[in-house]
Amino acid sequence: MRRFSPVNFVEVRLEGKFWKERLDTVLAETIPSQHEKLGEYKILESMDLLQPPPPLRYPRNQHNFTVQVFWDSDIGKWIETASYGLSHRRDAKIEAQIEALVDKFEAAQLPDGYLNLWYIGRELDKRWTNLRDNHELYNAGHMLEGAVAYFRATGRRRWLDIMERYVEDIRKTFGPGPNQKHGYCGHQEIELALIKLYHLTKDKKHLDLATYFINQRGSQPPHYFDEEARARGENPADYWFKSYEYSQSHQHVRDQTKVVGHAVRAMYMYTAMADLAAELNDAGLKHACEVLWHDVMATKMYVTAGLGPSAHNEGFTRDYDLPNETAYAETCASVALIFWAQRMLHLDLDGQYADVLERALYNGALSGLSRDGRHYFYANPLESNGTPTRWDWHICPCCTMNVARLIGQVGGYFVSHSKGEIAFHLYGGISTSVELEKGIVKLRETSNYPWSGEIRIEIETEKPFEFTLNLRVPGWCSGAKVQINGMEFSSTAVVKGYLPIKRTWAKGDVISLSLPMPARRVYANPAVSVDVGRVALSRGPLVYCIEEVDNPGGAVQRLKLPRNAELKVEQRTELFDGIVTLKAAAKAITGQDWKDTLYRADAPSETPTTLTAVPYYLWNNRGQGSMLVWIPEA
Amino acid sequence: MRRFSPVNFVEVRLEGKFWKERLDTVLAETIPSQHEKLGEYKILESMDLLQPPPPLRYPRNQHNFTVQVFWDSDIGKWIETASYGLSHRRDAKIEAQIEALVDKFEAAQLPDGYLNLWYIGRELDKRWTNLRDNHELYNAGHMLEGAVAYFRATGRRRWLDIMERYVEDIRKTFGPGPNQKHGYCGHQEIELALIKLYHLTKDKKHLDLATYFINQRGSQPPHYFDEEARARGENPADYWFKSYEYSQSHQHVRDQTKVVGHAVRAMYMYTAMADLAAELNDAGLKHACEVLWHDVMATKMYVTAGLGPSAHNEGFTRDYDLPNETAYAETCASVALIFWAQRMLHLDLDGQYADVLERALYNGALSGLSRDGRHYFYANPLESNGTPTRWDWHICPCCTMNVARLIGQVGGYFVSHSKGEIAFHLYGGISTSVELEKGIVKLRETSNYPWSGEIRIEIETEKPFEFTLNLRVPGWCSGAKVQINGMEFSSTAVVKGYLPIKRTWAKGDVISLSLPMPARRVYANPAVSVDVGRVALSRGPLVYCIEEVDNPGGAVQRLKLPRNAELKVEQRTELFDGIVTLKAAAKAITGQDWKDTLYRADAPSETPTTLTAVPYYLWNNRGQGSMLVWIPEA
Repeated sequence: MRRFSPVNFVEVRLEGKFWKERLDTVLAETIPSQHEKLGEYKILESMDLLQPPPPLRYPRNQHNFTVQVFWDSDIGKWIETASYGLSHRRDAKIEAQIEALVDKFEAAQLPDGYLNLWYIGRELDKRWTNLRDNHELYNAGHMLEGAVAYFRATGRRRWLDIMERYVEDIRKTFGPGPNQKHGYCGHQEIELALIKLYHLTKDKKHLDLATYFINQRGSQPPHYFDEEARARGENPADYWFKSYEYSQSHQHVRDQTKVVGHAVRAMYMYTAMADLAAELNDAGLKHACEVLWHDVMATKMYVTAGLGPSAHNEGFTRDYDLPNETAYAETCASVALIFWAQRMLHLDLDGQYADVLERALYNGALSGLSRDGRHYFYANPLESNGTPTRWDWHICPCCTMNVARLIGQVGGYFVSHSKGEIAFHLYGGISTSVELEKGIVKLRETSNYPWSGEIRIEIETEKPFEFTLNLRVPGWCSGAKVQINGMEFSSTAVVKGYLPIKRTWAKGDVISLSLPMPARRVYANPAVSVDVGRVALSRGPLVYCIEEVDNPGGAVQRLKLPRNAELKVEQRTELFDGIVTLKAAAKAITGQDWKDTLYRADAPSETPTTLTAVPYYLWNNRGQGSMLVWIPEA
Repeated sequence: MRRFSPVNFVEVRLEGKFWKERLDTVLAETIPSQHEKLGEYKILESMDLLQPPPPLRYPRNQHNFTVQVFWDSDIGKWIETASYGLSHRRDAKIEAQIEALVDKFEAAQLPDGYLNLWYIGRELDKRWTNLRDNHELYNAGHMLEGAVAYFRATGRRRWLDIMERYVEDIRKTFGPGPNQKHGYCGHQEIELALIKLYHLTKDKKHLDLATYFINQRGSQPPHYFDEEARARGENPADYWFKSYEYSQSHQHVRDQTKVVGHAVRAMYMYTAMADLAAELNDAGLKHACEVLWHDVMATKMYVTAGLGPSAHNEGFTRDYDLPNETAYAETCASVALIFWAQRMLHLDLDGQYADVLERALYNGALSGLSRDGRHYFYANPLESNGTPTRWDWHICPCCTMNVARLIGQVGGYFVSHSKGEIAFHLYGGISTSVELEKGIVKLRETSNYPWSGEIRIEIETEKPFEFTLNLRVPGWCSGAKVQINGMEFSSTAVVKGYLPIKRTWAKGDVISLSLPMPARRVYANPAVSVDVGRVALSRGPLVYCIEEVDNPGGAVQRLKLPRNAELKVEQRTELFDGIVTLKAAAKAITGQDWKDTLYRADAPSETPTTLTAVPYYLWNNRGQGSMLVWIPEA
């Protein structure tokens, strides 16, 4: 069923300024500093399973829950991120740090393979008794992703061996057998990790276990989480979320048609579902993915590709509920949306998936990491009164490593291939080589994307042969032009966002792709009540925002943009490492004559001003200040 | 220091349609149905102190807290409300219900006077050990207000005697003495209740105890709530609010300059502070009240006089943070604002206080009670997506009785007097008689206020004598005209919102007051970012809103009102018991051509339409639907 496979990030060399800078920052700053933070916050220390167990660093909340139960996942995710770093350039210090972590996991692992530091250190008798809340399989999933990444980067098997033993323990524990638990994790993640292990080992048993978890999810009555709660002596009705929608276990996944609950759980699950649809040629699962995709795209996604408006459930509420200032829009959710979009894109080469992948990558996910690579947003609101600021760590550090591991492997999102086709999804300056059935194709894409849409692709084959090169023409672009070796190529044949060019390619062939990139206004469906009468600005894949630092004189909420105001594109070489800002004549509502008046009959006075917008992902990198994506129209 | 005293509600006969209807509804529907609800929700049952104690009806939350600890206050507040009802018309059934409640309190009272059903029934050894959280003195305050009201209505002393014994126990327990607790309640209320007891008994010891609680509040180090927590074996740092701002005990009340924390606690405290400023001629306390008043008026009050944007602390956040859809704006807070405003108004006859009193009365408080008198809003948002609906009860029923007791005594807000002056604050059809130093003045005010500003006041004295009649000219009104006995009276002499008319008045004198009442646009200070580009509609004291039922075709959030659109005033005799609606030519943003598109480049199309607005207090009386106060301008 899968049409395309990604060209792995290790095969893709980032040469363009934009992503090279981000990757270098992650390698030089983010990965080392995150290891420091894991130490500083005693997450590493907690790996030493002393007698008595180390004290609780963070209190249990009202639900008897402490974030410490998922620290294993944070360690696993750091190993994964650091391993992507090692794939780019080996680093003895990082490798020693990973080995030291593996030492501790190895020392803690039980003879039966079980490996969860929280339970081993504190309450081993309670293992596997609270799948709903306590993240054991979630942790295992992130540890496993880390083990696969570390093996791929270094060829060292020890961590992978440990995790394969743990997976065997999990396989024995869970399944349809009479002596097995018929459960699954409250926080999806193990499923997609098992599929990665399957891709590495080709051993179908891992695919089978992932399939079991996905198929079993939501079975009832009785619901597994109810039975489990009763076994703990709890009343299932005391569960602090109204329904199992929170963990997308309210019904079988194939029956789900609405995107509900915790956003990251949802996205991880849909990613695994799309993976399984491809692996199992399961049209029903693919259809379920498509229905859910449609639901989130039509009613629940921020213009930044942020997901999940509510902090309460870290997730979804009702259709069109997209508050800006209080948006949760967790970094992890946008990162996971990229995972899902990529899987959907490989099921069907359809630009709607690539458009969302790109939107999330350049906006809702990228905003989670500061320019310095050492500060983070967990929530990514679309409006700020100036209070929120980036954190150097988080009590629940999931997002910090999620955005870093995304950037660490970002090259893997650029190009895909099938037997006789290549598809370019993203642009920005890469070189890679792709093995097709008929031979190897070397590609060099040169551009200053996302700042410019002028793209050059050089093709090199050992000998000429025919294949189809699919060039993505982004949904935001109109008037794209293509030249092949200087000759115009009709771009009218764009199919679902891709221009297929089937011809005999040879060394020296050059494609020029011109994607006009004017500044654009974006309007939200009027059902999004908070955005009525407002406009967002964008250019290329980037959503823009107005920040107080560029628009001094008070909160940016005072600015109004006339609908007919020209949006001017400005190259700003002095800002960051060179960006494009947007400028427009605007109106400023002045509060100067209001003094202490809160309400009055006279409308606020307006003065002409100039509005400057910067890419959203860069917000809050120059100190605190107000920020706005959806600007009122004058 | 106090210039004026209110004419008690029992002396004020409501004759106008508006308030007579509301009062009749409270008497016929609200008071009896609330007693039923107290039974239905087992609040009455919990008064029977069986062995073993009755089971917990509501679970303790993560802070070991259950709403049941303040059920005594709900019973006290119902008795207070019902007593106001008895002041209007005696009712044997209601009196028997009150007596039955008093029986139970009497049976439960300990020999030392202590009377808290939660502690007596469950954990008497823990009484007075958690003033911060457990509402003992708060409960006592509401019980005491009920006892004073019941005595005033019926002359029956038993409930008052019981409460006076309890007050003696409280007096012994709290104070500066070495064997006394130097504490005060986490939720203010006892203070203003003690002042009511002082007004009834003239015994200064009650005033002294109220003064002690107010003066002691915020003393540190050490902070009483810290000491108390340590004595319970808890770490004060585990308190679930960041600071004692939550209970306005972060500093001495006289040092407080910003309105912070839980809104109802704040308003009850300021009410007591203003009371004490008057009783003690305490200029410092009065100044503190004025500073706090200025702060809330300049930066923190919704246009409906709702207070407290946040559900998290049921209270205040930062200046100008006035979100509409998520506004908490608890009914109780607007009711308590009326209490405070009335005290301020009696310290200084200043229209700014009467304006806010009126604004809260007709909008943020009145919205809390449905037309049928049996449904309630606890939160009073200024925007709705159609989901919120009125409740027939609330797990924490404080607001239900607060709005009912307000209406039960609403006549007490109309007229005040001093030795030689009368002040009219509100209009709406009342008759009353006021005793001045020189004689009795009978007043009959006739109007269809708030629907009309044409007001007629007839004056009758036994013999002619000179006094000053102060007529309030609301802040929202311009062009007020006054005639005395058909002769125009210069209204240019309005002083702080009141027109003083000093003359010799005699039987047969008639004043005609004409308050022009056009529909008006109201704008918010641009610092209120959510209201930028939006306008609210009002007429007279009423704030208007647009509801889906009057504006069919989709959510009202799609409507835009051009700044120059004429606002037409329409008498609607068929709606409710006859109201005035506002109509204007407007634009509707249509979502019809959007289908499943969430974002697009084309601005939404607009079609001409007519917008109909109804008074905010009436919203959600005709089924669920979207609602909006702040309308986007076209």
